[in-house]
Amino acid sequence: MHPKFTITKTTAHGRLGKIETAHGTIETPAFVFCATKGALKAQWPNMAREAGTQIILSNTYHLLVHPGSKLIHELGGLQKITGWSGPMMSDSGGYQIFSFGYGSVSSELKGKNKDQERSKITQARLKITEEGAKFRSYKNGSTIFLTPEVAMQSQIDFGVDLAFVLDECTAFNIERNKTEKSMHRSHRWATRSLEYFNKYKKPHQGAYSIIQGGVYKDLRIISTKFAAEADSFGIGIGGSMGENIHDMEEILKIIHKNNDATHKPIHLLGIGTIDAILMAVKYGIDTFDCVYPTRLARHGGALIKPHYNTIINSNKTRQSNTIEIKDNTNSASANTRRHYLNLRNAIYEKDNNPIDISCNCCTCATFSRAYIHMLLKADETLAIMALTQHNIAFMNRLMSGIRKALSEDTFEEFKNAWA
Amino acid sequence: MHPKFTITKTTAHGRLGKIETAHGTIETPAFVFCATKGALKAQWPNMAREAGTQIILSNTYHLLVHPGSKLIHELGGLQKITGWSGPMMSDSGGYQIFSFGYGSVSSELKGKNKDQERSKITQARLKITEEGAKFRSYKNGSTIFLTPEVAMQSQIDFGVDLAFVLDECTAFNIERNKTEKSMHRSHRWATRSLEYFNKYKKPHQGAYSIIQGGVYKDLRIISTKFAAEADSFGIGIGGSMGENIHDMEEILKIIHKNNDATHKPIHLLGIGTIDAILMAVKYGIDTFDCVYPTRLARHGGALIKPHYNTIINSNKTRQSNTIEIKDNTNSASANTRRHYLNLRNAIYEKDNNPIDISCNCCTCATFSRAYIHMLLKADETLAIMALTQHNIAFMNRLMSGIRKALSEDTFEEFKNAWA
Repeated sequence: MHPKFTITKTTAHGRLGKIETAHGTIETPAFVFCATKGALKAQWPNMAREAGTQIILSNTYHLLVHPGSKLIHELGGLQKITGWSGPMMSDSGGYQIFSFGYGSVSSELKGKNKDQERSKITQARLKITEEGAKFRSYKNGSTIFLTPEVAMQSQIDFGVDLAFVLDECTAFNIERNKTEKSMHRSHRWATRSLEYFNKYKKPHQGAYSIIQGGVYKDLRIISTKFAAEADSFGIGIGGSMGENIHDMEEILKIIHKNNDATHKPIHLLGIGTIDAILMAVKYGIDTFDCVYPTRLARHGGALIKPHYNTIINSNKTRQSNTIEIKDNTNSASANTRRHYLNLRNAIYEKDNNPIDISCNCCTCATFSRAYIHMLLKADETLAIMALTQHNIAFMNRLMSGIRKALSEDTFEEFKNAWA
Repeated sequence: MHPKFTITKTTAHGRLGKIETAHGTIETPAFVFCATKGALKAQWPNMAREAGTQIILSNTYHLLVHPGSKLIHELGGLQKITGWSGPMMSDSGGYQIFSFGYGSVSSELKGKNKDQERSKITQARLKITEEGAKFRSYKNGSTIFLTPEVAMQSQIDFGVDLAFVLDECTAFNIERNKTEKSMHRSHRWATRSLEYFNKYKKPHQGAYSIIQGGVYKDLRIISTKFAAEADSFGIGIGGSMGENIHDMEEILKIIHKNNDATHKPIHLLGIGTIDAILMAVKYGIDTFDCVYPTRLARHGGALIKPHYNTIINSNKTRQSNTIEIKDNTNSASANTRRHYLNLRNAIYEKDNNPIDISCNCCTCATFSRAYIHMLLKADETLAIMALTQHNIAFMNRLMSGIRKALSEDTFEEFKNAWA
């Protein structure tokens, strides 16, 4: 069965739809969780499913480094080996060309030193030509030549339902001239990617072209038209979209306005903070992927609605009243409102409340904030497992809330409740 | 409800029984899994239950260091905060006096360097007097004075069903004279422990006295008589039992022969390799605790029956035929047969079999050896979670097999099948 996208409702605030795949249906707008190296971090696949997860995404680059796409194919493909039998996406490795080449600017909570270190190691060795990108494996030093054809064959081998063309991302401070050249190369790579993919893909697979063009609106228009016309199942939006959520919104507006292929599903690559999602659905974004909820969990962060603490504190403990001030963890970005508790903070030492009393995930049904705090301080893996489960359930609840609000024409109110 | 022990069958090969507690019944012989710092490592409590776990054990020493017994009491006790609502045991901290004072000789797979380092730090600071043992906390440097009364109050605070008196363990190479002195101190501590405990305990709690005496048989006889006469619910067997399983068997024989309190449940402290269990049930041991199955999981080890590979290889893949030779992980001890696969080994790279085709745990139902190998190589937490789940299920299957065999008078055959 080919993947099939159906728009079930279009509103001024966003659209509802479903992506049917051989491995199940994704109700959109949907969040795609990152199983970077072929596994959700610290999470059983069946528990991810119980927490409402519809689809997960693995990274071609990481899987090429280890264990290689041929082995995954030989073992039966990602969906067989991972125990995740639902829909899967993979990216193409393009983001890693960017991230390892230029250093990451995208993510607030990433292990920056590690990235920078890797960047240093790989930067000197990274060689991008018209043919593709040549790396040294960070695992064993062997050379990996990631061409459009290799990227697509790898994703075919993985057996994923939804794949992405190979692209080159650019940093947000790259000048117009370089961004334009890079965009055109990405287009040529996209053409090669789709030619190869459409020839050799498995019947159940579909690919996304990718809109590049960085922060330059005229380039984004050119790239939108290119991606819309490409022989692809869906459209991805990649590359830098500026320094903050307002820059991002301006770019999404332009893309939305200039996209003639509204029948294709649109995926926003690597973006998944709550504010960004609530902003972006308006511009027809159907799916989002981001390491944010699972990475935040590994740093001791538990997602909550803004002002949730203030609300529950009025009739519960006063203990956690002051988190917005006392909590020193960097917020997701200067422009992003705070949507999490840092459970490493000593103020949770005696907080016997669950993370969120209204949450029906098994973490909130089982553990208190005080216990998770205690486990975090003791370096117990269970803390990360519990926070991961909660954050996944939280994001899925957010997305189902968005779908419900779009369905009932109450999106504006829904969004305001999160402000 | 007081804990209650009932022997349901006594045979020449061991005995069957049940320990009824306010939190549920433990069918014996049973394995007690270690939740050292108040959590099973890398394991959801409900999944431990699903894998057949009856009872878990936390460590007084570690919980005193962090977060303290008062806080645990204030939060509602271990069974409330951990989400493990079944029966719980705690040890008294005595083993840590031994381990941090002398360095550990007990466990093959422990992180020895870390222990040795801690031992160095704490050794100079460790001061044992008649009153108790004084440590510095490895967490914040504060002084902890572990007396029999503190050990028992802590365990009362934890709310566990089954507690242990404070004792002092000795290393296996300690001379008779010192062992004897230490044993008598342990007896005096036991008397103080039980006096305190029986006065202040919660109604549902019961305590175990502990047999010491090291490798000296005459001392073991004296200590057995002491422990049998003590005003305790159960009897624990602690301290060094020699260099190998044969030494251990000799000591268990002596204890078995000289124990007049056969109506009390007997716990073998810190021993839980498969060979030791299969040997020890004969001597009336009802419960065993050990970090072995969960620690082995964290090192990439998957428990299997001996010769399992040879059996399945005859009609399945030849791939893993050679593990007994190729696998370089230290075996549990020179005297112990090999009961696990080291899934870090490259021979599992393409092994699409589950760990054990006959195992009904969710790891074996979901993941192949090849996938777990891939995850171990990628440092994915899911590998440890999966192996922990399997090893817990494995140990529980072993114990229920032992119970069934005792019940059906087929223990000899059962044991031979494991040889």
